[in-house]
Amino acid sequence: MKYTELDRELLEKEFECVKKEFDALKEKGLRLDMSRGKPSAEQISLSDGMLSVINGEDCVSGSNDYRNYGIVDGIPEAKKLFADLMECENDEIIVCGNSSLNIMYDTLMRAMVFGIDGNSTPWGKLDKVKFLCPVPGYDRHFRICEKLGIEMINVDMTPTGPDMDTVEKLVSEDESIKGIWCVPKYSNPDGITFSDETVKRFASLRPAARDFRIFWDNAYCVHDLYDTPDTLTNLLKECKKAGNDDLPYIFASTSKISYPGSGVAVIVSSKNNIARIKDQISTQTIGHDKINQLRHVKFFRNVEGIMVQMKKQADIMRPKFEVVVNTLEREFSENTIAEWTKPNGGYFVSVNLLDGCAKRTVKLCAEAGVKLTDAGATFPYGIDPRDRNIRIAPTYPSLEEMKGAIEIFCVCVKLASLEKLLNK
Amino acid sequence: MKYTELDRELLEKEFECVKKEFDALKEKGLRLDMSRGKPSAEQISLSDGMLSVINGEDCVSGSNDYRNYGIVDGIPEAKKLFADLMECENDEIIVCGNSSLNIMYDTLMRAMVFGIDGNSTPWGKLDKVKFLCPVPGYDRHFRICEKLGIEMINVDMTPTGPDMDTVEKLVSEDESIKGIWCVPKYSNPDGITFSDETVKRFASLRPAARDFRIFWDNAYCVHDLYDTPDTLTNLLKECKKAGNDDLPYIFASTSKISYPGSGVAVIVSSKNNIARIKDQISTQTIGHDKINQLRHVKFFRNVEGIMVQMKKQADIMRPKFEVVVNTLEREFSENTIAEWTKPNGGYFVSVNLLDGCAKRTVKLCAEAGVKLTDAGATFPYGIDPRDRNIRIAPTYPSLEEMKGAIEIFCVCVKLASLEKLLNK
Repeated sequence: MKYTELDRELLEKEFECVKKEFDALKEKGLRLDMSRGKPSAEQISLSDGMLSVINGEDCVSGSNDYRNYGIVDGIPEAKKLFADLMECENDEIIVCGNSSLNIMYDTLMRAMVFGIDGNSTPWGKLDKVKFLCPVPGYDRHFRICEKLGIEMINVDMTPTGPDMDTVEKLVSEDESIKGIWCVPKYSNPDGITFSDETVKRFASLRPAARDFRIFWDNAYCVHDLYDTPDTLTNLLKECKKAGNDDLPYIFASTSKISYPGSGVAVIVSSKNNIARIKDQISTQTIGHDKINQLRHVKFFRNVEGIMVQMKKQADIMRPKFEVVVNTLEREFSENTIAEWTKPNGGYFVSVNLLDGCAKRTVKLCAEAGVKLTDAGATFPYGIDPRDRNIRIAPTYPSLEEMKGAIEIFCVCVKLASLEKLLNK
Repeated sequence: MKYTELDRELLEKEFECVKKEFDALKEKGLRLDMSRGKPSAEQISLSDGMLSVINGEDCVSGSNDYRNYGIVDGIPEAKKLFADLMECENDEIIVCGNSSLNIMYDTLMRAMVFGIDGNSTPWGKLDKVKFLCPVPGYDRHFRICEKLGIEMINVDMTPTGPDMDTVEKLVSEDESIKGIWCVPKYSNPDGITFSDETVKRFASLRPAARDFRIFWDNAYCVHDLYDTPDTLTNLLKECKKAGNDDLPYIFASTSKISYPGSGVAVIVSSKNNIARIKDQISTQTIGHDKINQLRHVKFFRNVEGIMVQMKKQADIMRPKFEVVVNTLEREFSENTIAEWTKPNGGYFVSVNLLDGCAKRTVKLCAEAGVKLTDAGATFPYGIDPRDRNIRIAPTYPSLEEMKGAIEIFCVCVKLASLEKLLNK
């Protein structure tokens, strides 16, 4: 059945039918949550060996005692592990605390107060600062900009990454555009990995603003669901080749490798940028949690150890993603009122509905006991211009819950679409 | 022998004698460090039980899993423990990450970018922002102000705290004075605890600037050396009594209770201020390291548990402080070229020399293999107007090393003083 080709009478009939289904679901009084990209308890338990992996003696390394003050850029063992993971040099990385969001926020706060490079005006002193925001994107990126009064400009995502024609045009023309947010691998929420060409075009940008930076949130760098993962070209290396060494700020964390909230986060950038940031951070703190850094090194040992962990994570997550995608396929492959992504990794499935149906669907789901991310959350200022995008986060509920939740979602999508088509 | 009463001939004789002693020490090629307020390895090892005190199951509390995202203001158990310690209510505290310096820095950065209270101008938009700095004080406080371009005004410390006549006068007259740094208990470096009257006068300040705040770094709140510790009046409560609820930002951490760098830090303030800060922090991070918060709760259990730990810390630290104070007493009680504090707690002994002798003494100590905090470090901009204050940090070296180091220090003080008295 293809709603968009039905006449009014058939639509009304279908509406009655779906409405009944919805009411029945509502009566069940379920409480399911597909709203946030949180790992499940089962995933988190994979790291519990880490909780007792070190003792006091382990913390002493040569003249350093990691239990004491100091070492603002991270313990050498952690720098090695994460430099290997991020494919960068030892002097191109700082291993920080528990949150890459925190690093991003702090990076922007420093830009506001001190400026990007010591030679340019602090953004807080400028009349206007703008950021490009590929959409749909990550709500917490947008929230930082909104709080800082940074004007956000939507740029469409394509299957190969942001629309680079638009990106190149805008950054070369407008000096007030100071940055762009990217989640380059398994993007939030589309699950798109930027193509080699897209990364190279990023590396070769010629921004009008000399203090323009690419905020490259590589949150899902090793978060593959399948044995044939997407691959992402190394932006740092490409920037060097293009003579644009200082252009990228790259962020990552183990929040979805080990523990969300008790992981380790890193910033990667040019040697110059890292030296400046290290100096700035040394006013902010005497050092991050080095014991937790060591805990991660002892538990994972090396990149191979991380990849083994990620395969275990994938084994838990994959069935949930497949339930979502297969159910959507079953319900909507012919009835073209929804389009969705089939990501090879990351934490989300992104669904586009008929224009104007996202908010209503989220509301209907809530009534039926399924919590979704707010419609609009994937756009700056919470405004989805077409009110059609919904982000589904399949990881946190159990597989059984996920099955139930996505069935309800499909019913709600149908109901919202029918309401729209019938102008109800 | 009292140098200041000797004639030139006797001074020259003494100079030759002390110079010989100095040269002999220099030849020993020692390497001792009294420069930073770091706990010793023995102190740090007191907390090693914490490294394996929790397992995965411990992290699940009701519907919360502390291994997962969320809870930006700290887990309830940690809020309880630290609210008890700080003697505040549950909604007057945020339990954060590993560093109180980090919280202070972030608090100032937010003041720069957003303003203090939503109704006043962001400090970064003002022509001039000034802070009062009781001197001598903590170099890292001063460094934050310096980096932010906040002008620092020295206020003398007295045996009962900062010179409150001056503080009251300045803050009531000058609207550009937005804050004051205080280490109210066992102050860094003097070891002075503010008197009840001083605290009450702080609580009753009537600043010209409505966005004036007291930055109350209670770094040594339970860091007593003796069974008869100093007591500090509760600023938060006094401010409430005075109708000045929003005036104080209070900071503390377990850096010198558990692990420096892997402890837990808190900010305490009025309910209003805490609500605003919590909202602001929720843009910066999804949450601090809750597992580490739980680790502290499980290890210490309650305030009593913290006090037991602090007694063990004191037993290790006390002999070192006594070596310092007793040696100074022996060398300088009659020869009045040095004055020093005898703290009941904290991490430092503060020594005042003859004017103009601090830098030279630090240099001589370095030549003889003893590293001291830079002269001037205890003053804004690193400038000690009388070049006389030296901060001694007795905790990190072993007792034996401390004995050697303080002997060398005394010789260097004498040599520098003799050089000065002889105009060499």
